[in-house]
Amino acid sequence: MSNREVPFVKGHGTENDFVLLPDHDGTALADLSPAQVAWLCDRRAGVGGDGVIRVVRTDATDDPAAVAAREQAEWFMDYRNADGSVAEMCGNGTRVFAQYLVTHAGVDPTGGLPIATRDGVKVATFTDDGRIGVDLGSARVLADTEVSVGERSWPATHVDVGNPHAVVFVDDLDDAGPLHESPAYDEVAYPDGVNVEFVVRRGPEHVAFRVFERGSGETRSCGTGACAVMLATVLADGRVAPAPGEGAVTYRVDVPGGELAVAWTDEEHLVLIGPAVLVASGVAHLPDD
Amino acid sequence: MSNREVPFVKGHGTENDFVLLPDHDGTALADLSPAQVAWLCDRRAGVGGDGVIRVVRTDATDDPAAVAAREQAEWFMDYRNADGSVAEMCGNGTRVFAQYLVTHAGVDPTGGLPIATRDGVKVATFTDDGRIGVDLGSARVLADTEVSVGERSWPATHVDVGNPHAVVFVDDLDDAGPLHESPAYDEVAYPDGVNVEFVVRRGPEHVAFRVFERGSGETRSCGTGACAVMLATVLADGRVAPAPGEGAVTYRVDVPGGELAVAWTDEEHLVLIGPAVLVASGVAHLPDD
Repeated sequence: MSNREVPFVKGHGTENDFVLLPDHDGTALADLSPAQVAWLCDRRAGVGGDGVIRVVRTDATDDPAAVAAREQAEWFMDYRNADGSVAEMCGNGTRVFAQYLVTHAGVDPTGGLPIATRDGVKVATFTDDGRIGVDLGSARVLADTEVSVGERSWPATHVDVGNPHAVVFVDDLDDAGPLHESPAYDEVAYPDGVNVEFVVRRGPEHVAFRVFERGSGETRSCGTGACAVMLATVLADGRVAPAPGEGAVTYRVDVPGGELAVAWTDEEHLVLIGPAVLVASGVAHLPDD
Repeated sequence: MSNREVPFVKGHGTENDFVLLPDHDGTALADLSPAQVAWLCDRRAGVGGDGVIRVVRTDATDDPAAVAAREQAEWFMDYRNADGSVAEMCGNGTRVFAQYLVTHAGVDPTGGLPIATRDGVKVATFTDDGRIGVDLGSARVLADTEVSVGERSWPATHVDVGNPHAVVFVDDLDDAGPLHESPAYDEVAYPDGVNVEFVVRRGPEHVAFRVFERGSGETRSCGTGACAVMLATVLADGRVAPAPGEGAVTYRVDVPGGELAVAWTDEEHLVLIGPAVLVASGVAHLPDD
């Protein structure tokens, strides 16, 4: 088996971690295969990560999402899941992608950094203390539902953030016990499965949660989950979306992998804010297909 | 938080994986702290691995194990567990260490490559097909014992390979179910816990096993476990150790992370043989303590 030397950068946002592959001019990795992506994400036989993000200019790839965004964004986030499949995007991944662009590609984020994704253009912003926010757009609260683990059941709020969530308020994060398998849920409400968040209040405008992600199991962080949790909490607090010109409503949202914040800037916009850290860079010996 | 740029190589042996840190002259990383080792092994916030191996010449460190081995070995394997604690050694780690020395330090392994460890000098050998063997010395079979998972129990063979093992023959590798926690065992026989191997026969001189390692949970491979399994199997087959001058008795031993072999060369020597792969190299941004 021969190998190919592929430069990479590894980074994480609240321990949601990614292998970034620089391919700025689109010539090196356009043929990256699902098996190679899976190898890169393999935590023991490869580099290790929750996903791979190929970094390519929008004018250097013919991916329809990049082509459509050429007027608005210079950079395209070509995101792949750990199983090698193509994905739309990932909230924490977008924040790490922005950190990469500023650190390794000399990009100036002043005024907002637009990033093309398969879910449209997302704008990243850098806070004065070095955190990175990404506007994930709107979320919708749907009918009440219910979630069970073993013999315990809880009422849950169905929140759609582009993907489906069930938000459960519990007295203690341990209440759900070890989450080796998915909580039981209403398969009519969630025909494609659901991400389940177990939430406790920590103080005013401050919550913490554990998450069970469909397809992945319990994880250290989930960006869309943080948005779902924030929206369910802020509505439970009886608040309404800020009107234009009003300041954002911001809640701190702790996850096992660190500390996030979600800012509700108006009815249509939730901004996920948190750290994005680049931990290593180097060359991977990518196996041929 | 400032960071330090630390060169690293990542490699694995049957998916038992390690972060190797070149420090050949002992000047760069003599002060590596437990917290920094834990960060390097962190699979989401750091580089990721089952352990860290600092690579240092025996005459460039005052570690007593290295000092004692200076006449016999040029290189010292300074092995640390993922929690940052100092460890004696690791069978698969020694094989990956040998691969590193040949690939990155220009070492000629002809005639056997002696490696100083905190468990004495181990000799690595390269096979014609590129696998690497390491002589782990002798193992002892002790009294019969018993292991249980839930309501099922099995007789087990107690094998001491420097660390304690319970080898259980099962009809199917799924018989033990998902191993989220340690099987129950005899705490008198194993006062410090035990590594449990569930073994099936695949053919003549060919077995496969799953392993639950104390302190780590179910893992992809365990070198001493492979030796324990081989010895329990070869004795169950009614065979005796080869006499001096006789050829080795070799069994193939499959693990979830790949294929190993164990050669019983005489009463005092079990040689663990298998692949050792270097997958990436680069620079880690090591946080200060």
